[in-house]
Amino acid sequence: MSPSRLSQLLAAQHAGTPGNRIVRTMSERGALSATEIARLTGMARSTVSTALTGLKQSGIVIEAGEQGEIAKGVGRPPVTLVLNPDAGTCIGVHLSLDSIQLVVADVSHSVIAERSIDLGLDYPVEAATSAIKDAVARLYKEHGLPLSRLLGVGVSVSGPVSPDGTVQRSSIVPGWTGMDVIKTFRGLFDRPAYADNESNCAAIAEMMWGAAAGESNFVLFKIDLGVGGAIVHNGEVIRGIAGGAGEFGHISIEPGGDLCRCGSRGCLEVYASFNRPLVQMQRMHGRHMTMDDVILLAERGDSGARRLIADTAEIAGRGLATIGTIINPPLIIIGGRLALAGDMLLGPLQHAYDKYTHIKPAKGAPRQTRIIAGKLTENDSLLGAIGLVLRNQGKLERAVYAAPRRRYG
Amino acid sequence: MSPSRLSQLLAAQHAGTPGNRIVRTMSERGALSATEIARLTGMARSTVSTALTGLKQSGIVIEAGEQGEIAKGVGRPPVTLVLNPDAGTCIGVHLSLDSIQLVVADVSHSVIAERSIDLGLDYPVEAATSAIKDAVARLYKEHGLPLSRLLGVGVSVSGPVSPDGTVQRSSIVPGWTGMDVIKTFRGLFDRPAYADNESNCAAIAEMMWGAAAGESNFVLFKIDLGVGGAIVHNGEVIRGIAGGAGEFGHISIEPGGDLCRCGSRGCLEVYASFNRPLVQMQRMHGRHMTMDDVILLAERGDSGARRLIADTAEIAGRGLATIGTIINPPLIIIGGRLALAGDMLLGPLQHAYDKYTHIKPAKGAPRQTRIIAGKLTENDSLLGAIGLVLRNQGKLERAVYAAPRRRYG
Repeated sequence: MSPSRLSQLLAAQHAGTPGNRIVRTMSERGALSATEIARLTGMARSTVSTALTGLKQSGIVIEAGEQGEIAKGVGRPPVTLVLNPDAGTCIGVHLSLDSIQLVVADVSHSVIAERSIDLGLDYPVEAATSAIKDAVARLYKEHGLPLSRLLGVGVSVSGPVSPDGTVQRSSIVPGWTGMDVIKTFRGLFDRPAYADNESNCAAIAEMMWGAAAGESNFVLFKIDLGVGGAIVHNGEVIRGIAGGAGEFGHISIEPGGDLCRCGSRGCLEVYASFNRPLVQMQRMHGRHMTMDDVILLAERGDSGARRLIADTAEIAGRGLATIGTIINPPLIIIGGRLALAGDMLLGPLQHAYDKYTHIKPAKGAPRQTRIIAGKLTENDSLLGAIGLVLRNQGKLERAVYAAPRRRYG
Repeated sequence: MSPSRLSQLLAAQHAGTPGNRIVRTMSERGALSATEIARLTGMARSTVSTALTGLKQSGIVIEAGEQGEIAKGVGRPPVTLVLNPDAGTCIGVHLSLDSIQLVVADVSHSVIAERSIDLGLDYPVEAATSAIKDAVARLYKEHGLPLSRLLGVGVSVSGPVSPDGTVQRSSIVPGWTGMDVIKTFRGLFDRPAYADNESNCAAIAEMMWGAAAGESNFVLFKIDLGVGGAIVHNGEVIRGIAGGAGEFGHISIEPGGDLCRCGSRGCLEVYASFNRPLVQMQRMHGRHMTMDDVILLAERGDSGARRLIADTAEIAGRGLATIGTIINPPLIIIGGRLALAGDMLLGPLQHAYDKYTHIKPAKGAPRQTRIIAGKLTENDSLLGAIGLVLRNQGKLERAVYAAPRRRYG
């Protein structure tokens, strides 16, 4: 994931609600009048006005006039609005295979800054936490944000995390196995910390801002270099007693099959991830290739690339059919980088799902499971880490908005 | 299921709480004094007194003295207590392959009466509803219960039922496919009706009175002549958009495997139900045998019977491991008639589960999935049908207890 792509994605993602567009514009431009906001965002003045009323009521935006009441009376200049620095920020962290991604957002769900830290495989916990602490300090300084108004830290982990915060064996960040992530990050920033598996975070992100917005019952199924997922019931991610719920990649589909990195044999991930197809493509083309390269080739009509995507879709669809038989969800969101292959993936995936699942989708019949691609595929886990904090915001909001508003500037 | 076994089971099941023992005794004996109740139930006078206070407060038991206040003053005879006929009753119905089971219970969760109606395979809906209506009328007359105080009807169906009450294809009661069970039973008794799949009902029963009492997150896995189950999250059964959640028997474990009654191939049920082993045993012994017969033979040391149970357990354990990988529940309850084989089943089942599931149980480690046998195996679905009504009792109770208490007798 390149930071520039992340920014683009976030910009697009925040294009949706007027409130978020305003906050984003204000965080880029600083103090602005309502007229300037309307001009810069291209939104109607009435839309801006309505959104500003909400933002002011929730304490996210304040009038710069509050700096000194006297200025207001002189010739009635347009009221200048600023983001309330007291409304607070939160940090999202994604602990992945060989790097750590960071994102800073405010309580209006607007992303303020992001950073990626490369650490190499099997990075130790101490190196990671110290790099995170430094990067956060720099980010807050660069953006003139007070760390004193940090509300909480959300951590997405590439591996199962028990509800009490312990990273389980079989994660892809072995240095963290057995660590209490919640305790570690609570200590690091002296603030509330929340942690969950990366796919569970992805589901939270899709539910808050993506393809599952407005849905409270769905399954997320990720197809990437690994296979994973999440189950959301009544708006809550099912975590399992050890944090293992939704580990779809490790369904045993071949009792005597090939060894999996998790220590079992014949796991779905061995056959339905894009790991082996990628190796085959690299061998065939005699050069390093990414999943994006293969998808691009397939889009241009390369039959080998298309075949590998279709074959992966078929076996993934069989695995997904098992999940459908067990959960029968109203909605399945396909995440992971292979979801970017669009219909080349979704077509054969749906076909295999229909063939192998118990409740068959029938044309025009009600109560069918819908299968669609996710919207935040490339950054879902990182955004979900922010989501972990924001979903606990009910508690935080009271603390924040009960605090006296400090003067701005 | 023989009615006498059901009575025994219910008697044992109700042995637990003093309140239920009192209600059961009173429903058998009629009007009693507290002293007589203590003698008949064998409970301490103080225990009876405490339980009676609760039962009186909730309007389940009333003083017969309320029949005529004058009698009370004469020589202070012991107060005679009776069940309040106004507290109401509910009906549980289980629609199974070739017969229908009925049970009548009161709001204190005590079973008052039960009945079984044999109808033969593929019985039509009209024959069933008319037989049910007649049987209920007779049962209420026999027990002197007023049908006017019927609170609701719960229906357990041997097949998936959508949350809006429609029986899905792939049920084993084909005559009911596409029927709205809720509407049918609401019309039949002019009372609220509730309906769910038999395994979901079984899970409700185990949660209310059985092996999952006090648990709000667990999986029920049934091994019988079919394989089925249920997922309970935060005390609520996950039903799925079409009522298909928990259809564990129809996970496809062999893409090109044998045809299943559901229309798919290689379903878990084909290999992990006790259907084929039973046919083998019958062929081997040259006579009709039930699952109970095979379990009895196995208990007496018959190595063929033991081997078939163990082999079934192994493949069922593999299927269960998939469910464990997907849900990672704190608790798994094994239901179905094969659960009566006890450790002969549970031993190899646990072994296969540990081998094939993602989060391996480790000795002494916290956050392990516990696998135990159900407690209400033989009647779980029927009792769960009562549970469907009682779980909605919050609403009902207000209506009942707000009504003026009618004089008794």
